[in-house]
Amino acid sequence: MTQMKAAVFMEPGRIVLQEKPIPKAGPTDALLRVTTTTICGTDVHILKGEYPVARGLTIGHEPVGVVQELGSAVRGYKVGQRVIAGAITPCGQCHTCLAGHTAQCGGKPIGGWRLGNTIDGCQAEYVLVPDAQANLAPIPDDLTDEQVLMCPDIMSTGFGGSESGQISIGDTVAVFSQGPIGLCATVGARLKGAARIITVDHIPERMAMAKRLGADIVLDYAAVDPVQEILRITDGTGVDVAIEALGTQQTFESCLRVLKPGGVLSSLGVYSGKLSMPVDAFAAGLGDHRIVTTLCPGGKERMRRLLAVISSGRVDLKPLVTHRFKLDQIEQAYDLFSHQRNGVLKVAITP
Amino acid sequence: MTQMKAAVFMEPGRIVLQEKPIPKAGPTDALLRVTTTTICGTDVHILKGEYPVARGLTIGHEPVGVVQELGSAVRGYKVGQRVIAGAITPCGQCHTCLAGHTAQCGGKPIGGWRLGNTIDGCQAEYVLVPDAQANLAPIPDDLTDEQVLMCPDIMSTGFGGSESGQISIGDTVAVFSQGPIGLCATVGARLKGAARIITVDHIPERMAMAKRLGADIVLDYAAVDPVQEILRITDGTGVDVAIEALGTQQTFESCLRVLKPGGVLSSLGVYSGKLSMPVDAFAAGLGDHRIVTTLCPGGKERMRRLLAVISSGRVDLKPLVTHRFKLDQIEQAYDLFSHQRNGVLKVAITP
Amino acid sequence: MTQMKAAVFMEPGRIVLQEKPIPKAGPTDALLRVTTTTICGTDVHILKGEYPVARGLTIGHEPVGVVQELGSAVRGYKVGQRVIAGAITPCGQCHTCLAGHTAQCGGKPIGGWRLGNTIDGCQAEYVLVPDAQANLAPIPDDLTDEQVLMCPDIMSTGFGGSESGQISIGDTVAVFSQGPIGLCATVGARLKGAARIITVDHIPERMAMAKRLGADIVLDYAAVDPVQEILRITDGTGVDVAIEALGTQQTFESCLRVLKPGGVLSSLGVYSGKLSMPVDAFAAGLGDHRIVTTLCPGGKERMRRLLAVISSGRVDLKPLVTHRFKLDQIEQAYDLFSHQRNGVLKVAITP
Amino acid sequence: MTQMKAAVFMEPGRIVLQEKPIPKAGPTDALLRVTTTTICGTDVHILKGEYPVARGLTIGHEPVGVVQELGSAVRGYKVGQRVIAGAITPCGQCHTCLAGHTAQCGGKPIGGWRLGNTIDGCQAEYVLVPDAQANLAPIPDDLTDEQVLMCPDIMSTGFGGSESGQISIGDTVAVFSQGPIGLCATVGARLKGAARIITVDHIPERMAMAKRLGADIVLDYAAVDPVQEILRITDGTGVDVAIEALGTQQTFESCLRVLKPGGVLSSLGVYSGKLSMPVDAFAAGLGDHRIVTTLCPGGKERMRRLLAVISSGRVDLKPLVTHRFKLDQIEQAYDLFSHQRNGVLKVAITP
Repeated sequence: MTQMKAAVFMEPGRIVLQEKPIPKAGPTDALLRVTTTTICGTDVHILKGEYPVARGLTIGHEPVGVVQELGSAVRGYKVGQRVIAGAITPCGQCHTCLAGHTAQCGGKPIGGWRLGNTIDGCQAEYVLVPDAQANLAPIPDDLTDEQVLMCPDIMSTGFGGSESGQISIGDTVAVFSQGPIGLCATVGARLKGAARIITVDHIPERMAMAKRLGADIVLDYAAVDPVQEILRITDGTGVDVAIEALGTQQTFESCLRVLKPGGVLSSLGVYSGKLSMPVDAFAAGLGDHRIVTTLCPGGKERMRRLLAVISSGRVDLKPLVTHRFKLDQIEQAYDLFSHQRNGVLKVAITP
Repeated sequence: MTQMKAAVFMEPGRIVLQEKPIPKAGPTDALLRVTTTTICGTDVHILKGEYPVARGLTIGHEPVGVVQELGSAVRGYKVGQRVIAGAITPCGQCHTCLAGHTAQCGGKPIGGWRLGNTIDGCQAEYVLVPDAQANLAPIPDDLTDEQVLMCPDIMSTGFGGSESGQISIGDTVAVFSQGPIGLCATVGARLKGAARIITVDHIPERMAMAKRLGADIVLDYAAVDPVQEILRITDGTGVDVAIEALGTQQTFESCLRVLKPGGVLSSLGVYSGKLSMPVDAFAAGLGDHRIVTTLCPGGKERMRRLLAVISSGRVDLKPLVTHRFKLDQIEQAYDLFSHQRNGVLKVAITP
Repeated sequence: MTQMKAAVFMEPGRIVLQEKPIPKAGPTDALLRVTTTTICGTDVHILKGEYPVARGLTIGHEPVGVVQELGSAVRGYKVGQRVIAGAITPCGQCHTCLAGHTAQCGGKPIGGWRLGNTIDGCQAEYVLVPDAQANLAPIPDDLTDEQVLMCPDIMSTGFGGSESGQISIGDTVAVFSQGPIGLCATVGARLKGAARIITVDHIPERMAMAKRLGADIVLDYAAVDPVQEILRITDGTGVDVAIEALGTQQTFESCLRVLKPGGVLSSLGVYSGKLSMPVDAFAAGLGDHRIVTTLCPGGKERMRRLLAVISSGRVDLKPLVTHRFKLDQIEQAYDLFSHQRNGVLKVAITP
Repeated sequence: MTQMKAAVFMEPGRIVLQEKPIPKAGPTDALLRVTTTTICGTDVHILKGEYPVARGLTIGHEPVGVVQELGSAVRGYKVGQRVIAGAITPCGQCHTCLAGHTAQCGGKPIGGWRLGNTIDGCQAEYVLVPDAQANLAPIPDDLTDEQVLMCPDIMSTGFGGSESGQISIGDTVAVFSQGPIGLCATVGARLKGAARIITVDHIPERMAMAKRLGADIVLDYAAVDPVQEILRITDGTGVDVAIEALGTQQTFESCLRVLKPGGVLSSLGVYSGKLSMPVDAFAAGLGDHRIVTTLCPGGKERMRRLLAVISSGRVDLKPLVTHRFKLDQIEQAYDLFSHQRNGVLKVAITP
């Protein structure tokens, strides 16, 4: 067997399932047989032509699979082993990685994101993981694919938002938007010791999930003005950390408006078009505010830690998987996911 | 003697020297006889009506003086002692101060800036320093007033920009604008171990001073496109830290454009009107960039450290004092300073 | 009424209940009517003469009470208000406090600990809180005295151990000894996102409580060699952070022996006699180890945060209160507590 | 030509120059023709049998050289290029490296130190650099071998001591011992903004060099009690950061004795035998002290930064090279260096 099925970006508006040759592992690669993967909001941006990738590229950056072949220079793994790799696959050996900015591997913005962006991704039967030595994380036997499916991207990103926000024990935290990333940011805030977590969304399933995953207060932005309400709840003092998890002017700006002087706006969203800084909420630049952005941390050590959190039982992200599809049905899955039908949060795709 | 002269904000466009009663020290205050002070760029904003203060307020927030009277609860100082206080005078005892954000004392943005903002300032013969216990810093005998005159504001602010930027040994740093604050940021970058400091300005005196104070490369924005030039100098990699020291769209944006992924934009400028975030340079929010703002750190421990730097001889900021005036001539001083005539950097005002 | 009862240190071996005058609040003090307090392990050191205090001093540093009188310079509180103050009562205005080391207030080691150490403490009907402006934290109405009784010392100390250890999401943490401080360190490790918490003790009640408060693995040092066992559990890699919560050579040394290179030994114990560094476990000083010590963080902002954690319901430390005494019975309470009888963890003392 | 000369550890007391085969580069290695190298204090420990290495091992871990051969997987370099590699050569791809503790590569203490420790070193005509992709740093054309000879080890280590100590602008810093590492720590303290640097040694050449490299005060421990003197100089407050650069009980202990509460003891020395913690100076564990250890940071990004510092002209470490030898004379060089004759600081060895 030398051919496999893969979800390929053809042109804006079209991702289709195609036959492609199964790739061969170079010296530093690993070839995985994908057992489960998922679709990310970024893939929808690709589908819509809002984030440009090469035509003919296989999409997908959240692989759960089994090692099929190991490059000659890769040590410490074996064929048949169950592993994940992060959405971001840093090399670990360039200046930027060695400086600790692994998601920006190679020194170019977003340089660490390769799978389904600059090289073929994992919405396919097989995927090559580059720099496998730095990126393969074995899955503990007692965890199912779906239990670990969120590790490669949204769990790492959402937790990253709470970490970059430097949430401390006793903090009050606001999280704007409770899509999959925002929900994981809520979980991350809880894990970091926030004493009060206020989340903002409107979709009932997401609001319910926020509550279930640890939000203390869940605001419906259609029912209340979230900025006014958060200021009211905090007696006018505002929050220590505000996490932006949507990528819009309104959520970005609202984060600043609810922030204490000295507070941190931790931004996870992907912005497009124009973004303006509200100079008043920014205290004219004199409020000791910090705005920090985080691209999904990757690499095997990050994955190991996230797997440890799942193993501990402290966090269960399986409920985020609301729908399941075979790889053959992936076009259907994109249709559901991109239109956010039926309360979808995340889909599981199994080749 | 119960009356003193003070520079008072009357209305936009008018700061005039007036007679006022010499204030009395409350239990936690200290009354200083001002021996030297200066005018800040912010005072010019006040003069122009761009930063609102109450009419009748005495302006000025950079006091060098002698203790004239101590509040009953203030311990450890004595009348006649030479001291400075920071432009920012935190209480040390509110939630925000105890959380370490002393410049935001009281939890309101810019709350720590009281002198010449919410209470009478020091462009006068006498000034009350509030919460004196937390704010009076004795001046070593061997330092002159002019040697320490930059400590209360621009040295603290400029150094703060390099500190908030978390400059590390070996960093490449860009500083946009070389007014007094920007020059002090250049000095701060040098003190923190930056290996290459690239500064941007246009005024010859400021460019020369930048070089003198430690800049490695001085760019004239009228002669070259500083963004292109900085990218060229850094072989396209950009800088680790970019310090914004003017408060304009262009300098803010240029900082982002020369920044490495994972880099820090350390913002010192005071913004007004509109500020927009260049989404491309911001890598759509995915570049692991951090934007940090710093209001002048105050308090006596900060002043003590800055005085120690001056005492060490590592830094000499006296050359920034380009002009000298008597308090009686302060209206003249405002005229010169606000129009940036004669290569003025900072003026010394002596009552 | 001008007299009150107070537990007074007479001489090594003797703390007795005495009559003393009710103190008067100076300008920066607050007088509290104590409603609940407790005995700390340190008080037992005082009792035994191992930690020297002045004869005649009232002991106790964990006050829950009601404001009886406010100093003239104290603002924002009112008589009758329920408050706590931390065991450590920093001034907020000295160099050391302004540098952020509030527990070392005044620049002398342990300088922030005043109540029951250098000034009269709170095992009494009334207590003066110094620098009340920086130290009084109002208790939310819906919390009982016993719910907040651990905030002033052991909760702040134990959490501090996890904070100084810089525990990150996914860490493996060991906590040596599960007395009250160690148990709070376990809770703190959980709050900071540790994925696996391994605790070591021998007393059944403490082991059971460790499990209840969030330990994943509870080792009995009499049944296994905890160092060997922790290395076994971690596949020989060791832990990211080891928290020492007893103050002995053995626990200190064991912490180093289970620590990863690059890991943090977070020390909370009070050492006496000799302490030696095991050079082998210390990797001859080349293991990139960090040893950090933490004295109970105090001040009203710290207390506010801890109260917020209690209010959130994430943590319930009331079960640590295993015994209750009237102030009249305090000598009995010391007897029980100092001999660790009847599975005592903490006692509540009510005047 | 297939044979080369190499300085080989035979047995305690004997390092001799031998013929060995020139090694071949594996896929991830680079073979360097060594142009300059040096001897480190650690090599003397090896010579004396105090630090165990395999018999027959080539010693040396500070290579300056020219790329002779590149492994098949190494990209971005070319044969003939002048490069250095750090004493520590991390892989960048293991869990420990990805966690940022590159000097502890592989998760074993000191695991990142391979050259001249676990694999053949560079006191030879040729040396293999492992994981070359992560470790080769090109030397700017305008720098000589001797100018960069300190980068691989003592500059990185000494600077690392000031970095781990988190020296801030305005700090007072003490550095105990002014051997090569201590001298570099002094330079590092200066680069990080220390306002007052107090160094302690006894050898006149070292004291003079300390002064030349930036120490403000140079104490001769034979003339004064350095602890008493430092406390006197600092008006009893002690220093913010004390750097230990010798590895003895006395210097370790003295560091603690001159440290402020809340201060950092940054330890660089290699300890052997017994090390005891002075419980009094350690404030019984309650002084909020931190003790941090640092093994020489390596990797090409670290080397790039150090080269940038040298290129900037801010630091000139060439004066540390006091003696020069041909590789053929290396036994003589060991003799001089191990007995610290003739004011030797560092020797340059040229094959």
